[in-house]
Amino acid sequence: MSQVFVDVGISLDGYLAGPDRGPQNPMGGVSMQLHEWLFAEKAFRERLGIPGGEEGAAGPLIRRIFDRIGANVMGRNMFDEGEASWPEEAPFGCPVFVVTHRPREPWIRPGGTTFHFVTDGFEAALALARAAAGKKDVRISGGADLVRQALNAGVVEEMTLHVAPLILGRGLRLLDGVEPGKFALRQTDSIEAGGVSHITYDVIGK
Amino acid sequence: MSQVFVDVGISLDGYLAGPDRGPQNPMGGVSMQLHEWLFAEKAFRERLGIPGGEEGAAGPLIRRIFDRIGANVMGRNMFDEGEASWPEEAPFGCPVFVVTHRPREPWIRPGGTTFHFVTDGFEAALALARAAAGKKDVRISGGADLVRQALNAGVVEEMTLHVAPLILGRGLRLLDGVEPGKFALRQTDSIEAGGVSHITYDVIGK
Repeated sequence: MSQVFVDVGISLDGYLAGPDRGPQNPMGGVSMQLHEWLFAEKAFRERLGIPGGEEGAAGPLIRRIFDRIGANVMGRNMFDEGEASWPEEAPFGCPVFVVTHRPREPWIRPGGTTFHFVTDGFEAALALARAAAGKKDVRISGGADLVRQALNAGVVEEMTLHVAPLILGRGLRLLDGVEPGKFALRQTDSIEAGGVSHITYDVIGK
Repeated sequence: MSQVFVDVGISLDGYLAGPDRGPQNPMGGVSMQLHEWLFAEKAFRERLGIPGGEEGAAGPLIRRIFDRIGANVMGRNMFDEGEASWPEEAPFGCPVFVVTHRPREPWIRPGGTTFHFVTDGFEAALALARAAAGKKDVRISGGADLVRQALNAGVVEEMTLHVAPLILGRGLRLLDGVEPGKFALRQTDSIEAGGVSHITYDVIGK
């Protein structure tokens, strides 16, 4: 059964991105710090077409995530930052539905990623992503606004957080504005790999 | 070698306590939610003199924490809330140095806990706790203000967080106001027990 899931890296104090982020400063400059464990892994670098990396403890975890994704839903800020920084072969390998107010023709990248721009809201983008994913899963890619919107709408079924040993002190917090009364979390997995805690929750609507 | 450590339970969004807390409402009423895993464990209930509980996966972890503590340093708010809610045999079994502006005679409880009230600041309380602990470790018990003060002063050597699968949305956040530039964290352990993630960091001063 196809699932809707969130899978993001955050700092120990809950930040998904640093301050002053934008297309000229993707993720507020903290991507390498937050995702150091990821960039160290061969499984991730292969996907981005970057040579090197090690076959580390987080390798199986990374492959499992990539393998399950049939389609992505993404917020406009994340897309704008990514458009300026992803390699030509954008690292998704499947359809990405971008929630935006600006209509645009689909943007087809080599390697199987096509960005579709959806102007009638999150729910519409999610319906398109579900249809495109078939039996595979739909990832709510981010950013924080979109994750919050998805959690508050009660459509997220699973959430994995990769908690890096880092205190940022400011920036964009993942869980600010999430409405606690709308769902409960049940921890289903918590493992250590690459010096980071990888915690998975079932998200149970109330 | 004696260590100074922090060991606290927080919600997934980083809260140590709920809103509107005080002696009439210890921890803002969220203690049972945050520490459900702890109250389920025989190892913890024994310490508080509460019958029942199970010998669960977190038992060894809890005993290890209790066994290492030679003395505690505690903030005044935490003491005020605890004074109103701890059982007569307060659950520390060793000296507790309370940082406060209000002088008071030592308060001796049955079971080995004595509260000492230190009016010349955190560093003075820590020095007394170190002396009292001998070869055992000093726990910075909380609340959030005292943990922040200890982290920013560069005296904490290890920090364990018990991250409960709970979003509180408001209250007292543990890591707000911590100065990220003053230290680095290195994750040394991350385990799952009782549906909660127990993550330990070395705190490395810069």
